[in-house]
Amino acid sequence: MYRSHNCGELNASHINTEVTLAGWVQKSRDKGFMNWVDLRDRYGITQLIFDEGRSEKTVFELAKTLGREFVIQVKGTVIEREAKNKNIPTGDIEILVSSLIILNAAITPPFTIEDETDGGEDIRMKYRYLDIRRNPVKNSLLFRHKVAMEVRKYLSDLDFCEVETPYLIKSTPEGARDFVVPSRMNEGQFYALPQSPQTFKQLLMVGGMDKYFQIVKCFRDEDLRADRQPEFTQIDCEMAFVEQEDILNIFEGLTRHLLKEIKGVEVDKFPRITYDYAMKTYGNDKPDIRFGMKFGELNTVAQHKEFPVFNAAELVVGIAVPGAGNYTRKEIDALIDWVKRPQVGASGMVYAKCNEDGTFKSSVDKFYNQDDLAQWAKITGAVAGDMIFVLSGPANKTRTQLSALRMELATRLGLRKPEEFAPLWVVDFPLLEFDEESGRYHAMHHPFTSPKPEDMHLLETDPGIVRANAYDMVLNGNEIGGGSIRIHDKETQQLMFKYLGFSEAEAKAQFGFLMDAFQFGAPPHGGLAFGLDRLVAILGGQETIRDFIAFPKNNSGRDVMIDAPSAIDTTQLKELHIKLDL
Amino acid sequence: MYRSHNCGELNASHINTEVTLAGWVQKSRDKGFMNWVDLRDRYGITQLIFDEGRSEKTVFELAKTLGREFVIQVKGTVIEREAKNKNIPTGDIEILVSSLIILNAAITPPFTIEDETDGGEDIRMKYRYLDIRRNPVKNSLLFRHKVAMEVRKYLSDLDFCEVETPYLIKSTPEGARDFVVPSRMNEGQFYALPQSPQTFKQLLMVGGMDKYFQIVKCFRDEDLRADRQPEFTQIDCEMAFVEQEDILNIFEGLTRHLLKEIKGVEVDKFPRITYDYAMKTYGNDKPDIRFGMKFGELNTVAQHKEFPVFNAAELVVGIAVPGAGNYTRKEIDALIDWVKRPQVGASGMVYAKCNEDGTFKSSVDKFYNQDDLAQWAKITGAVAGDMIFVLSGPANKTRTQLSALRMELATRLGLRKPEEFAPLWVVDFPLLEFDEESGRYHAMHHPFTSPKPEDMHLLETDPGIVRANAYDMVLNGNEIGGGSIRIHDKETQQLMFKYLGFSEAEAKAQFGFLMDAFQFGAPPHGGLAFGLDRLVAILGGQETIRDFIAFPKNNSGRDVMIDAPSAIDTTQLKELHIKLDL
Repeated sequence: MYRSHNCGELNASHINTEVTLAGWVQKSRDKGFMNWVDLRDRYGITQLIFDEGRSEKTVFELAKTLGREFVIQVKGTVIEREAKNKNIPTGDIEILVSSLIILNAAITPPFTIEDETDGGEDIRMKYRYLDIRRNPVKNSLLFRHKVAMEVRKYLSDLDFCEVETPYLIKSTPEGARDFVVPSRMNEGQFYALPQSPQTFKQLLMVGGMDKYFQIVKCFRDEDLRADRQPEFTQIDCEMAFVEQEDILNIFEGLTRHLLKEIKGVEVDKFPRITYDYAMKTYGNDKPDIRFGMKFGELNTVAQHKEFPVFNAAELVVGIAVPGAGNYTRKEIDALIDWVKRPQVGASGMVYAKCNEDGTFKSSVDKFYNQDDLAQWAKITGAVAGDMIFVLSGPANKTRTQLSALRMELATRLGLRKPEEFAPLWVVDFPLLEFDEESGRYHAMHHPFTSPKPEDMHLLETDPGIVRANAYDMVLNGNEIGGGSIRIHDKETQQLMFKYLGFSEAEAKAQFGFLMDAFQFGAPPHGGLAFGLDRLVAILGGQETIRDFIAFPKNNSGRDVMIDAPSAIDTTQLKELHIKLDL
Repeated sequence: MYRSHNCGELNASHINTEVTLAGWVQKSRDKGFMNWVDLRDRYGITQLIFDEGRSEKTVFELAKTLGREFVIQVKGTVIEREAKNKNIPTGDIEILVSSLIILNAAITPPFTIEDETDGGEDIRMKYRYLDIRRNPVKNSLLFRHKVAMEVRKYLSDLDFCEVETPYLIKSTPEGARDFVVPSRMNEGQFYALPQSPQTFKQLLMVGGMDKYFQIVKCFRDEDLRADRQPEFTQIDCEMAFVEQEDILNIFEGLTRHLLKEIKGVEVDKFPRITYDYAMKTYGNDKPDIRFGMKFGELNTVAQHKEFPVFNAAELVVGIAVPGAGNYTRKEIDALIDWVKRPQVGASGMVYAKCNEDGTFKSSVDKFYNQDDLAQWAKITGAVAGDMIFVLSGPANKTRTQLSALRMELATRLGLRKPEEFAPLWVVDFPLLEFDEESGRYHAMHHPFTSPKPEDMHLLETDPGIVRANAYDMVLNGNEIGGGSIRIHDKETQQLMFKYLGFSEAEAKAQFGFLMDAFQFGAPPHGGLAFGLDRLVAILGGQETIRDFIAFPKNNSGRDVMIDAPSAIDTTQLKELHIKLDL
């Protein structure tokens, strides 16, 4: 036995106990006749004391050789500490060491193993195993485990069965780019790694599994934007004999359970808003509703006046920013510059300040009188002390721009509190979206999503307005889950592929097995998937997912620690029936 | 809501309740004026009754159109059944149907959806989603989920943290063949899919995670023998600051817990035998100890007599087969033919029958008298009514042959009872094994396994006899788990790579990151991995793993249901910087 206790559990009740501990040297303070060492393991820190008067000479001398991150084993007696440390659970005691063994010496780490480290992102990733020793990363991984366990328990208790679906599947051109795996045994053929277990979970429903889930890795070979990973983890779920309402209830229950068990937060029934409402009210299909600043559409009150910019615009839309009424001219100008940056893309911005005395001061006083501005205030919900910011232009673009401004101001005003949780459902997503590049409609969710029966007749005539039984769960401005009721009959599925531009042969080659399956008695079914990486990050109060992934890849898809990907030898290529084409 | 109850939960306490059920038509019996339908879902079967006298005419008529595997929804009243079926939980009641909706019609399935199906392996795999509707497969998947949940709960309660390690890692030539994934963003380079998360779990130990586990998919591109899959699932575990004893105790605890919770079986402390003992006593490093038939080495009593075959042999070894004393001459001859088959490879077999009167009748009476044979009986433990079978030849080969015979006879004698569980540990595996083909030593477990410190000095002089701190858990003749204490210092790891024939440059290129990590204070650590597919199959009392995998691949590594792997188009290849080389 390397240890009788861990470094986080000893306290005053253990005084006079003989213990054996093992761990890492966090730091050591040498006072000449006395030497204190902080011994660290996953569970905490325990103070060791080496005392010239009370310790054996060899032990005392050896302790002086200990460097940071040495791995040691000590035996000793738990004694009361003179200067107690109320900040840690072991702060009342220390170990008077009688025996010391250096299990493994350590060279100096390339960055400090502290909560606030001096190491930059790159070096931390190269030595990720050292980074994991730091509390913020270690605790994120423990937190992730806790969330995953709670998810499994909750779903399992509701009769969901976790089924492992295959990782070596079939490549399909629909959706994102696949990672592929050349087959040695099937010459010239390739497996694909799953972007999601979508078709398999539907086949499990056809197979009568009734309630399925899986916490599963998925893969997308996309150019990596910040905070995207080529491999990511989903909580993937599917249920048979359900309507949208059943699914929303079950997974709202799961999320509420997580918030309560993990964060101690009780939340009300989740608001449900339509995609259409979300876009008009927040300019965004994943609105952060921890704060207001809802959009007010000002066309009726701001157009048909003398201001040509607004008159020419498809949409004039504003938000009331609480407490921003006292922004200086300089601050406002900076904000106008901010919305004009290419990333946002507005051509300008109008503002109106709501004075404490009920009057208004705007940048367009030449065109609008106090009554006009009072109407703006009424529509945007502005009160004294607020600032109204107004953008105008083509409807969709303008909403997106105002949404960016809304989020930016909320961040600046401290309204995006990490420990406040405001979940909601966004429902009634469009079934299709028009893709300018390919000149055709694409499935907004995926081609297995069911159109709303009542919109079905519009598919031929006005496909763009057909709504789907599709829904997203949104938490604090992030889509954390999304899903849909699926098509479960061959005819509708065939029709859908047709509308998406598949030839009959293509549809059959790629998804024939699914449509065949539907012929053998497929139940109505639907489901959703949560992004686990994002979910744990948000529950953990963090903006980025990287610290919640043990060994993440960088933006070029590289693991810089193990140096992957890498070249492989030609014999290996030959066996796989491929050669390089550089 | 598609249903108020499922098809397995209604009983006499629900009589007169109005219910809504949904499911599949298992079968329908049309008696003209009366029509019974068995409605099936994952949870059970409920009988529906359509009665000309009591049902609406349209409903009654529609019921007559129902075929097998139609998906329907019914509303009706729970009534007491006249002819009760005591074999199913719902057997006391039936549903008098008032409303019937066909949710999805079904064409005739290609095989019967019954516990004993008329479908062969190939067609069941092609229509796996229909196969999953059958109880044996469905229950195997539910059973697997239950085992996995218990494993997670048990380990989680012991502070093990499940950490997800990456799937896109680095290819190494050591071990089995890797599946590789061409990188689009890193031209000419490849990821590999993990054969196990071995190095990552060791890095987690260096990172101070202390106790790690993961239920994780692993990949090996090997020619598939029966009952092997290119992707398989491991329960992967690692602990820091442990000795072999700690690991054996923890995972013996896990297995005992599973046997108790899942099977209701209490087992004693697991026997521990050495590799050497296992080979000498059972001819096998994964002995089935549900029965005896231990090997008796007969060299001292059978050699130096007149029988030249035994005199020339390196080893003469026998087993006493209980109750086989009455085998006919014909049966014995058939058995001799069996051991002479190329798959076993013995050149002949000697037998000695233990008569009820204490005398013996052997095939070598010419060379051995009754006293000689009495000694054979003593050494093999044979009693009256047994048959002693003796093989001879080169030691290792002969043991393997006798092991095959021992298992075959145990099967024939019904001694391999699926619901009896006899776990054990095999310890002290050799560190290295000599590979004739490459003319060098290979790591028996893997190159990270620690030699026993007391054998370390033999590495230079007699590497073949160096023992490792490596262990296997064996259950009913199957290796269900295996692991080792790892090397945790750079010098020993470097030495190990040297002994395994790596140049310094190769070792550094492939495992430099691990050896570097050891320099920063690696704790002593070790672990093991269970094969989940095999473990659940054995716990489920089955010989093959296929029904415990939702979507298995065939022996050519194909998924015949989705038809993968498959060709991909040239644009996709071009993006990946590869071309076919057929």
